[in-house]
Amino acid sequence: MSVHAVILDGPLPPDDGSPEDAGAGARLRFEGIVRPIEDGREILALNYQTYDPMATEMLRQLAGEMLQLHGLTGIRVEHSRGRVPVGACSFRVTIAAPHRGPALEAMAEFIDRLKRDVPIWKRPIWAG
Amino acid sequence: MSVHAVILDGPLPPDDGSPEDAGAGARLRFEGIVRPIEDGREILALNYQTYDPMATEMLRQLAGEMLQLHGLTGIRVEHSRGRVPVGACSFRVTIAAPHRGPALEAMAEFIDRLKRDVPIWKRPIWAG
Repeated sequence: MSVHAVILDGPLPPDDGSPEDAGAGARLRFEGIVRPIEDGREILALNYQTYDPMATEMLRQLAGEMLQLHGLTGIRVEHSRGRVPVGACSFRVTIAAPHRGPALEAMAEFIDRLKRDVPIWKRPIWAG
Repeated sequence: MSVHAVILDGPLPPDDGSPEDAGAGARLRFEGIVRPIEDGREILALNYQTYDPMATEMLRQLAGEMLQLHGLTGIRVEHSRGRVPVGACSFRVTIAAPHRGPALEAMAEFIDRLKRDVPIWKRPIWAG
């Protein structure tokens, strides 16, 4: 799958489960789900704002860097923009690698750096 | 989903994508795929032998330990027994947790301990 990164409007659709690259022995998928509580208060949804097209470009660059650094066979990233209700998926990363070690390391590093560096912000939509 | 662990005959069926526990903010899935090369030689499949019912019971215990230790909301484990062809999935772990940190730590620890402690062995079926 090499490198794929997109920002989509609203909740992410279900994973299409497309086959990964031949030769990968490890496939790792992370999904971020909107939780019902934020700062101790009930919410209905999160509203994601993204600084485009820079956010998409940075996701793609960061994914490419992980591919090289950890010797992945592929990395696929999807992130929501706009309103995502509680319980829905707003963020998905799928990594294919020869072995589990590099897949787990790349996943942890990718998410940390995304949260720190990529211009995507979330705003809670409070219940009541 | 709490704790679920099974050993199934042959390649694992596709992930059923069942919803995880309410309140989980992170969902992490690992899939182990049979690679075409083992010790530098081409293979057709791997044949998994399991010491039953001890293997299933140990998978379940280990999964339960990860649940407690890392504060997971759920963990689901499936492992193959018997012949699994190249490219097919022989092992799947799905973890749900409040946040990504515990999910990633639990996944790494679970797989390391499974490989070390659980009585499941693989034998290559060579090509040609």
